[in-house]
Amino acid sequence: MERVAIIGGSMTQFGQREDWIVDLLSEAGLACLEDAGVEASALDHLYVSNMASGEFEGQTGVMNALAHDIDAMPAYTQRIDQTSSSGGAGIYAAWQSIASGASEMTMLVGGEKMTHRTTGESTDVIASLTHPAEYKHGVTLPSFAGLTARHYLERFDAPRESLAKVAVKNHKNGVDNPHAQFQKEVDLETVLESPIVADPLRLYDFCPITDGSAALLFCPESVAREYTDEYAVIAGIDGATDTHVVHEREDPTVMGGVVESGEGAYEMSGYGPDDIDVAELHDMFTILEFLQMEGLGFAEQGKAWKLVEEGYTDRDGELPINTSGGLKSKGHPLGASGVAQGVEIYEQLVDEAGPRQVEADVGLCCNVGGFGNCVITTIMEAGQ
Amino acid sequence: MERVAIIGGSMTQFGQREDWIVDLLSEAGLACLEDAGVEASALDHLYVSNMASGEFEGQTGVMNALAHDIDAMPAYTQRIDQTSSSGGAGIYAAWQSIASGASEMTMLVGGEKMTHRTTGESTDVIASLTHPAEYKHGVTLPSFAGLTARHYLERFDAPRESLAKVAVKNHKNGVDNPHAQFQKEVDLETVLESPIVADPLRLYDFCPITDGSAALLFCPESVAREYTDEYAVIAGIDGATDTHVVHEREDPTVMGGVVESGEGAYEMSGYGPDDIDVAELHDMFTILEFLQMEGLGFAEQGKAWKLVEEGYTDRDGELPINTSGGLKSKGHPLGASGVAQGVEIYEQLVDEAGPRQVEADVGLCCNVGGFGNCVITTIMEAGQ
Repeated sequence: MERVAIIGGSMTQFGQREDWIVDLLSEAGLACLEDAGVEASALDHLYVSNMASGEFEGQTGVMNALAHDIDAMPAYTQRIDQTSSSGGAGIYAAWQSIASGASEMTMLVGGEKMTHRTTGESTDVIASLTHPAEYKHGVTLPSFAGLTARHYLERFDAPRESLAKVAVKNHKNGVDNPHAQFQKEVDLETVLESPIVADPLRLYDFCPITDGSAALLFCPESVAREYTDEYAVIAGIDGATDTHVVHEREDPTVMGGVVESGEGAYEMSGYGPDDIDVAELHDMFTILEFLQMEGLGFAEQGKAWKLVEEGYTDRDGELPINTSGGLKSKGHPLGASGVAQGVEIYEQLVDEAGPRQVEADVGLCCNVGGFGNCVITTIMEAGQ
Repeated sequence: MERVAIIGGSMTQFGQREDWIVDLLSEAGLACLEDAGVEASALDHLYVSNMASGEFEGQTGVMNALAHDIDAMPAYTQRIDQTSSSGGAGIYAAWQSIASGASEMTMLVGGEKMTHRTTGESTDVIASLTHPAEYKHGVTLPSFAGLTARHYLERFDAPRESLAKVAVKNHKNGVDNPHAQFQKEVDLETVLESPIVADPLRLYDFCPITDGSAALLFCPESVAREYTDEYAVIAGIDGATDTHVVHEREDPTVMGGVVESGEGAYEMSGYGPDDIDVAELHDMFTILEFLQMEGLGFAEQGKAWKLVEEGYTDRDGELPINTSGGLKSKGHPLGASGVAQGVEIYEQLVDEAGPRQVEADVGLCCNVGGFGNCVITTIMEAGQ
């Protein structure tokens, strides 16, 4: 079977935007087509990763509106929802569309418009993904994160500062991402003295509420070569669920979906953790970066915090993580985030990451839905 | 490439249900697995077709809840939304998952829970799929249907009774479907004297508001043979968009998405309209059955009404249409409808349609999203 290539990527400015969701999707989609030098009329499939435009804006059918707006008709279109991992699910769907022969050119556009709602309203929309058995007790994703962080720090004797260092690192990376919501450094003290949200986690341990969109363009490798010499290919991809009721998990520091999807992606690609040169992890909360590093085999259980403290995951470290700034400083427009992870790895592999560029032949993204309820891991390599 | 087979199908009782959405999905999913003799642990992918559980019930993440409820973890899961054609989009996604090699066993479960909301609220949720340029003028899908029906009847000199005969035929078929919302015949007079909803269309020209779920199980043909001799295969499938702004279409009686997706499915399958033995069309409104018959080549433009009047599409006619009772009498739980169309064709092809059974080697379903904004056409044949 022919390999699936990525020949274009784009993201809009993330942050507080006045546009409605379809304008955001169109902006990213058109920029992606322009980046690749492909006309909208060449699209066979057009996928939209979006969790909740109906809940946030009272607007559904956004994939059809997008096809109309960018003049992609009669391209087939569909909306993909896997909560906060909708973008990763979109990459998986786009890969399947090409690998199955259903499409020769698929554009994936992820996006969400959230900031017109209050933080409480947005948190409540997101919390609607949790199991009612937990939701009725007032559980939200931030509260899961707080409980898990407390457990991790005590069990593995990790200092509170190590979590804060994830935020410091990712904010530092975000300074060089012109599309990031926050392009400013924060110091350890600022993180550690910010208001408590879910003890022990504080404001700067959390990603912000964000509007934005991101896009990727997929085709068979033979078609990619007609357009460019600079492309990436998907070497491995897999997705997996864990219990939907979070408290049923045996070990709160192990995200089964991360482990399973990572193993699937490694097996398909033939690569292992040591082969990964750069990674985008889903740092919706700082603690998640530790859990993914361990679940994906970058660190032993309970040891990820040490690698972060040692600078191993800094941009000039052994394994740079979240060179884009991560969800933490780049922002987290739900449906866009997994796509934007892919855009960063794509740009790193085709040497278009500008001041964020690192040496990389193989990159990985891990997109976490809910609190690990479903996770998609994608491994890309530079095309030849 | 190996063909994609369907080895199981099920649907819950359609109608007014007290269960929440996840219970409906679980009921259909477990029945489908039982029908095929397959364990939930054998599932690689589990897809949920659902338009709006967030808007209807304030509940998202239903695909993860389903994976948990039926114990399918770590199967990868995803929600697929293509508004009223979410079920057809799910069939297309499931086909791609198998054809790409991503999965060896994919279950698709479509469902919606709507009747706890008023008809006005449900209509408004559905209308949120329309373009804001039209929505702000108070346009809903029933109003589009009324305008189109008026135009069709006048332009093609068709009698009002011909539309009513679609309702009479589909209700007659529904009598023999134990899962249909309405299992009772209606006569022409009842349809023609029912209250006006969108002139010239009356209450009995419309499908009801419905709760329900349906499921199909997909695998490669070689795997299907390990389980059963009685299976169907997907011979052709395609989806296509039309303008999202309905008033921009050149001819209001031509649904471009029906034509394009039909042509794609015919080309892939090698079949043409004359080869189809039985079809499930998206009769959300009676007028849509005419438009799909014409768009799919079963009748010339402006002539479908004559075939209906002649009994050509009756269960004992040349081309039985909507042997299940159609959306009209079976009901239309948005995300379930396209899947339930597939269940009917599957059951017809494996001779499990009971009193509704017709002679059929090749069947077709056409699932219409919005007012033809995106359409998916699937052609199945009996496996050998």
